[in-house]
Amino acid sequence: MSEHAQGFAAEEFDAVRRLFDSMLAADSGYSAQLAAYHQGVKVLDLHGGPEIAADSVTGVFSCSKGVAALAFGLLVQDGLVDLDAAVKRYWPEFGCHGKEILTVGQLLSHQGGLVGVPGGFAMEEYNDAAAVAAKLAAAVPFWRPGRAFGYHALTMGVFMEELCRRITGGTLQALYEERIRGPFAVDMYLGLPESEEPRYRDVLFDEDPHLPFIDPEGIPGISGNVRAGNLLTLPNLRSIRAVGSCSGAGVGSAVGLARLYAAASTGVDGGQPFLTQQTIATMSQEQVWGIDRVFSQESAFAVVFMKSHARMDFGSAQAFGHDGANAALGFADPAYEVGFGYIPQRAEEGGTVGRGMQLSIAVRKALLGVE
Amino acid sequence: MSEHAQGFAAEEFDAVRRLFDSMLAADSGYSAQLAAYHQGVKVLDLHGGPEIAADSVTGVFSCSKGVAALAFGLLVQDGLVDLDAAVKRYWPEFGCHGKEILTVGQLLSHQGGLVGVPGGFAMEEYNDAAAVAAKLAAAVPFWRPGRAFGYHALTMGVFMEELCRRITGGTLQALYEERIRGPFAVDMYLGLPESEEPRYRDVLFDEDPHLPFIDPEGIPGISGNVRAGNLLTLPNLRSIRAVGSCSGAGVGSAVGLARLYAAASTGVDGGQPFLTQQTIATMSQEQVWGIDRVFSQESAFAVVFMKSHARMDFGSAQAFGHDGANAALGFADPAYEVGFGYIPQRAEEGGTVGRGMQLSIAVRKALLGVE
Amino acid sequence: MSEHAQGFAAEEFDAVRRLFDSMLAADSGYSAQLAAYHQGVKVLDLHGGPEIAADSVTGVFSCSKGVAALAFGLLVQDGLVDLDAAVKRYWPEFGCHGKEILTVGQLLSHQGGLVGVPGGFAMEEYNDAAAVAAKLAAAVPFWRPGRAFGYHALTMGVFMEELCRRITGGTLQALYEERIRGPFAVDMYLGLPESEEPRYRDVLFDEDPHLPFIDPEGIPGISGNVRAGNLLTLPNLRSIRAVGSCSGAGVGSAVGLARLYAAASTGVDGGQPFLTQQTIATMSQEQVWGIDRVFSQESAFAVVFMKSHARMDFGSAQAFGHDGANAALGFADPAYEVGFGYIPQRAEEGGTVGRGMQLSIAVRKALLGVE
Repeated sequence: MSEHAQGFAAEEFDAVRRLFDSMLAADSGYSAQLAAYHQGVKVLDLHGGPEIAADSVTGVFSCSKGVAALAFGLLVQDGLVDLDAAVKRYWPEFGCHGKEILTVGQLLSHQGGLVGVPGGFAMEEYNDAAAVAAKLAAAVPFWRPGRAFGYHALTMGVFMEELCRRITGGTLQALYEERIRGPFAVDMYLGLPESEEPRYRDVLFDEDPHLPFIDPEGIPGISGNVRAGNLLTLPNLRSIRAVGSCSGAGVGSAVGLARLYAAASTGVDGGQPFLTQQTIATMSQEQVWGIDRVFSQESAFAVVFMKSHARMDFGSAQAFGHDGANAALGFADPAYEVGFGYIPQRAEEGGTVGRGMQLSIAVRKALLGVE
Repeated sequence: MSEHAQGFAAEEFDAVRRLFDSMLAADSGYSAQLAAYHQGVKVLDLHGGPEIAADSVTGVFSCSKGVAALAFGLLVQDGLVDLDAAVKRYWPEFGCHGKEILTVGQLLSHQGGLVGVPGGFAMEEYNDAAAVAAKLAAAVPFWRPGRAFGYHALTMGVFMEELCRRITGGTLQALYEERIRGPFAVDMYLGLPESEEPRYRDVLFDEDPHLPFIDPEGIPGISGNVRAGNLLTLPNLRSIRAVGSCSGAGVGSAVGLARLYAAASTGVDGGQPFLTQQTIATMSQEQVWGIDRVFSQESAFAVVFMKSHARMDFGSAQAFGHDGANAALGFADPAYEVGFGYIPQRAEEGGTVGRGMQLSIAVRKALLGVE
Repeated sequence: MSEHAQGFAAEEFDAVRRLFDSMLAADSGYSAQLAAYHQGVKVLDLHGGPEIAADSVTGVFSCSKGVAALAFGLLVQDGLVDLDAAVKRYWPEFGCHGKEILTVGQLLSHQGGLVGVPGGFAMEEYNDAAAVAAKLAAAVPFWRPGRAFGYHALTMGVFMEELCRRITGGTLQALYEERIRGPFAVDMYLGLPESEEPRYRDVLFDEDPHLPFIDPEGIPGISGNVRAGNLLTLPNLRSIRAVGSCSGAGVGSAVGLARLYAAASTGVDGGQPFLTQQTIATMSQEQVWGIDRVFSQESAFAVVFMKSHARMDFGSAQAFGHDGANAALGFADPAYEVGFGYIPQRAEEGGTVGRGMQLSIAVRKALLGVE
């Protein structure tokens, strides 16, 4: 296995390739895919390291939230859901215990205080969004809804899925498959079909033997459902990735993520983007900023999507996307007309100090023509 | 004096006793009481160190706010006060200078911007809540009410006391005595009777010779009323502890705190808890989270009660309680059916790194059966 | 050049002079002016170091925002503008893209999400507030207006200027000149007249060769308009300081800043302050506190004015003022009846660790009679 990345990099992005090469050279166990589109054209499609191939797919964890939110954006675009309407308009059972006033936009920007339920969810519930949704609809929020925000790691997908079911009668996964993944030939799945299974590679991760105590009944413990064990194992279960929960069970490749966000925001192959500028403006406007109640660190969210800031510097003020627990990263950046995807095979550190963000900075520098 | 704690620990909590023993062994000057109830039964009642006895009582500082809030919860439970009503409904003079719209729930979750008044309060005013209340009702808030929150160290008790007077005609201390302390035989006083004086032990503390400048007219200086000197001396004054201001002049023992919170949330001795599940849900729902304006650090508050988070990890998402300036700690944790009390005789560091929180984590680990 | 400051210090403030002397002695390249009024009387008027003179003036950067806000306060005082009214009442074009509900007070406390526009502003636009205002009125806010706040480095002055034009038909600079600078003989200009040019000294600064990447299209990059180069050069351009944009192109001396804030809050030379207590209470009440979206650090703002807090400890809870990018500082502190001005000739570190704040702490200690 070479220390150099394999695949394609347009000349303009040679500095990005060199940075990726240096990461591969520095760590013989490092394996990753990196891809980008610029103005609808693929400009980066690289992979390197012993554990990954050009066409392999793997779990992208919470990048799935961004994937699903692009499909949810079609519901907004079609006028089927009003982000400023109360959730209970679409989901009547939700209107109790102070949740009556919560809007769809607030719920989908982590303001609901519904990161889980006392006692946690059982493993089988990861594949049963309707059952989880019923529990959340009946729940007392952990904080006064709308007054704070905190990362809804396992329930954000449930909210999107339930709203889609209530509004369209179908699943959000099917909507994504029919209107986005199929038509735009995107190598990113919410529910990996049997036919693609041979390409699946297990997510790798190191167990940390010195983790601090996480109370399974505390807000962080409930958000991460720590009673059910390490979430990093989940996409490696066929039953989980077959269903593709929108919270975190998506599977795909870096080029899939990059193409998806390009198809949404710039179009690909000379076609129109599937989201209008108006829809992008609505879905990507930052809704919350501050100290996240779950992680006790700075975060910023639009409608589902993460926004860029110092601790998570993946793009411009217009960029919108999501990372995953393994530090995978997918986003669109309209200011740079970029779609970006990055997937490490072994879970690694994320945030601005992580490899994915550093590579995203290198892409912007290449386009700006600065060192 | 032994390096081992004296008193009782149920076998299930032997790891907690061992942790407490290790703290005593590591610091010969350390003296503290530690107590817990589980499912209404006393499971820990320990004390150790040269300066404390099994039956001694001492100042618990802002733990008093939690004690008083349990009594205030009875007013909510009895339907005498609506937390979502404007304060001025009960206290008309309060309705001025932008405070017209402030609700009781907002005022009692540190959102009022009324941490004190310019120039501070005189010592004798600590025992005259009505006089302080009149000044606060007439004051211009330091911040736009409801837009931020900051710890109201010396005025939170005044708010509770004044509202109780306006609503019931009596004092909150009397309400606590009659409906809680007496009936449930709780060794925790808001106003220490002369008869209990022989058990009182002075709060000990070290003066820090290198304190940074605290502007007595700055928000932190006003909140701590630093013009009046070191607050740690206050409960050692008979005149102060005799009145038992709800902001910070309560006196009691660790087992008193533990029994109090157990009586509120699980019941003790086979009886019903004095707060209903509905009242607990209402009073303990988190109202604010973020950077506290007074301390410039992360804090979370329910209605009066502190909530658990990374910097203050005393319990589950359902836990509610309060610590004190000496790092005393009392709380209920419905998720674990625990009432907990901890009192160091010498003021020490608090927060998650402190001994009290570490002991509370040990209690949870014991109940979870993890190391 | 002596290591001792030159000029006047009242005996009561000898410790402040000694601190300033020690700063001069520790750094031979350090040059600065320091001034204060107490109860309307000048008590400090010092300068030291090789690059500055008693009567020199230089750029004060965002201290200009505070200067302009004092003039804007006259519009509030005169009943010409209601801070709780929607911006669009005065500026109809502003009422679009979710900005319809934003109040004047919210806009002027950095809550508008209008820190700039994609692509940034051209240099010539710094002198054309009306053109910039038109772009901002048409813009989609970077965050949901009112839901967060972040420092509007280059647009805050534009908001004040445009509102003044809409309300009075004249410029805010002219209002300041006619009602404040002239009548009170204040050596602080929003638009430096040709006649004062001989006193102008260039702002000095060191270029940092190791700056981290700042995305010109990210929120911090747009707020600082980094595409247009280093803002520290701006007041050194005659064309910029001749116009005196309210965001940052004011020019003056430390004694000018001190006298200005004294004239506003205590009066000078035995006269009445030009702002009433009511106006000061309204303009100086803290509107926002938390993590600033632009700088990712704690900040507090009143209407335009900065408020004091741990990271920026320039005064009491009543103090209001503003610093500049060079660490210049001007404020009024009603609790101490002080007007304060500080200007370093070479841009230096600001915040509580900086020299200006340390000198402001020394002033308070002198008045409190503590070491």
